[in-house]
Amino acid sequence: MSSRIQRLQQLFPSEFTFVVTNPINIRYLCGYSGSNGVLRVTQSTATLYTDARYEIQSATECFDVEVVITSDLLKSALSHPSAVGVVFESAHLTHALLSRMQSLAPDRTFAPSAITVESLRVIKDASEIELIAQACKISTQALEILIPMVRVGMTEREISRMLERKMVDLGADEVAFETIVASGPNSAIPHHQPTGRALITGDFLKIDFGAKLRGYHSDCTRTFVVGPAQQWQQELYQAVAAAQAQARDLVKHGVSCEAVTNGASESLSASGYAEFFRHGLGHGVGLVIHEDPFLSATSSTTLMAGTVLTIEPGAYLANRGGVRVEDTIVVTESGYQNLTEYSYDLQEIG
Amino acid sequence: MSSRIQRLQQLFPSEFTFVVTNPINIRYLCGYSGSNGVLRVTQSTATLYTDARYEIQSATECFDVEVVITSDLLKSALSHPSAVGVVFESAHLTHALLSRMQSLAPDRTFAPSAITVESLRVIKDASEIELIAQACKISTQALEILIPMVRVGMTEREISRMLERKMVDLGADEVAFETIVASGPNSAIPHHQPTGRALITGDFLKIDFGAKLRGYHSDCTRTFVVGPAQQWQQELYQAVAAAQAQARDLVKHGVSCEAVTNGASESLSASGYAEFFRHGLGHGVGLVIHEDPFLSATSSTTLMAGTVLTIEPGAYLANRGGVRVEDTIVVTESGYQNLTEYSYDLQEIG
Repeated sequence: MSSRIQRLQQLFPSEFTFVVTNPINIRYLCGYSGSNGVLRVTQSTATLYTDARYEIQSATECFDVEVVITSDLLKSALSHPSAVGVVFESAHLTHALLSRMQSLAPDRTFAPSAITVESLRVIKDASEIELIAQACKISTQALEILIPMVRVGMTEREISRMLERKMVDLGADEVAFETIVASGPNSAIPHHQPTGRALITGDFLKIDFGAKLRGYHSDCTRTFVVGPAQQWQQELYQAVAAAQAQARDLVKHGVSCEAVTNGASESLSASGYAEFFRHGLGHGVGLVIHEDPFLSATSSTTLMAGTVLTIEPGAYLANRGGVRVEDTIVVTESGYQNLTEYSYDLQEIG
Repeated sequence: MSSRIQRLQQLFPSEFTFVVTNPINIRYLCGYSGSNGVLRVTQSTATLYTDARYEIQSATECFDVEVVITSDLLKSALSHPSAVGVVFESAHLTHALLSRMQSLAPDRTFAPSAITVESLRVIKDASEIELIAQACKISTQALEILIPMVRVGMTEREISRMLERKMVDLGADEVAFETIVASGPNSAIPHHQPTGRALITGDFLKIDFGAKLRGYHSDCTRTFVVGPAQQWQQELYQAVAAAQAQARDLVKHGVSCEAVTNGASESLSASGYAEFFRHGLGHGVGLVIHEDPFLSATSSTTLMAGTVLTIEPGAYLANRGGVRVEDTIVVTESGYQNLTEYSYDLQEIG
């Protein structure tokens, strides 16, 4: 685990101290998951500052850092006399906290970090992939149990609750994000919040959901049809499923995010549905549900083995219905491993 | 509702534009609850900037603002030529976003707001109090249903899940925060996360929980004993309950937070338990679970009618057990109204 701190130490000048304030990045670097913490890293030391409420928790969770219990975290973190400069997290540190740090140490140079901790998080280690895989398995198992129980007349909200409870019963700490259950015309809204709308025959039923396990997330979407699928529904579904497969099959170490995105777009263009797909193709998944890399047609980022990401094209026909198919996968040298294995057939349910 | 924007307009110089970026403050001022938004307020206009994903949601939710759909929120918000200066939220705006704003509008003056939107949120209006009261009622009703079902052998985690599900069944959108169910020696840890520990006779059972309803929170704690209460448990419980009552009874418009805090401390000193109470006495509750005002012995803040806050003294005997009693109350001219009505007796359960 110490490799995480060591990788960070290579990313800033030796005369500087890196003061990490983002809770997710602190958790990644040293294991501490409390709400109040500051991590101070120099070329030879790593110290977590937290308050007395977290004394037991930090002692249990932390690896590779010294823990200091203090009532003023920033003041303690800046009291160390060795460094001339302080590197901070520009994307996370607020103006108020930066101003306070500058007033606490007026003789220091403050500089935003050139390379972020987030960039270290892109490639997952084995322990991280194992937790994401477990969260994914909980998700797909919950869906396998849910789907035979879904009936005409159930509301989106009821279905959402059943699925969420099933994930917790299967071992999830909580849900990874607000579950999307979108039926009928609502399925044409990419990010729909479950309502009291009751399922009727002829509806699409789009379910986008995930589990959270020891900080790590899963993300999966499948779309079903209530009763017999109509012709337009089969066409729309097959177009999206084909685009998702085409994009997935392009994934491997060294391929650009742009190339994968273009694969999905070309497939949707060929079937005539490209104009109905307007969101990103996917995103990294880890300690945060949406993290680097983000897959778009303008992203020059290259995929690397060990990166976990979603592939989730969709097509949405306003006021009629929409389809999305999404997996969480891990990039390998030769391709990918799918962590959310679940049928790609258009299932007729209810 | 427009009074909220109007109150903000009185708090910054007329030649400035206030750019609000904190999502909770944006929700408070104009109703919009999406994850991506920037609110721009001048002395005569109020405009919400968001992206196409939130077109329907913003149209449904927003009051008193013009909505502009755009792909670059900050750029659009700063493109308006009228103001010479920009006021921003120092406690929320990150260094990265402030830098970007400065580069987008290099000829403007940027200044942290002298008065925060949070300060406007301290006094709740009738619609806010109604939602908090509903969330509180859901919480206490759920506890009334839960307690007769609790049995020796149940784990903290099982009890937590039962309570959380009951709140959702009673109409909560979700839980207000991670439920604390702490049994036996764990009850001596103020913020304990539920574990697989099973209840045994002789345990204290401390439950700190709340519901969330349309953005607003409730917060309540009660402590029970499993089986017959022992002498030390009765003494500890009565000491905390008396301190909570004494503090509550001091609450009214115009009283200082310090005076209320001292009331609890004096009561605990009289009973000999003052040294076992080391956290804050309470905090404001609203769109955020912990918000202004914070009750401590060094807070000179004066309570005002319409403020919703918790009163939650505790006493914790390491390795033996702890007690906390907490209500969410609303300050009135003559005293307070308790929103979490539930028995203060030490109930013997299981």
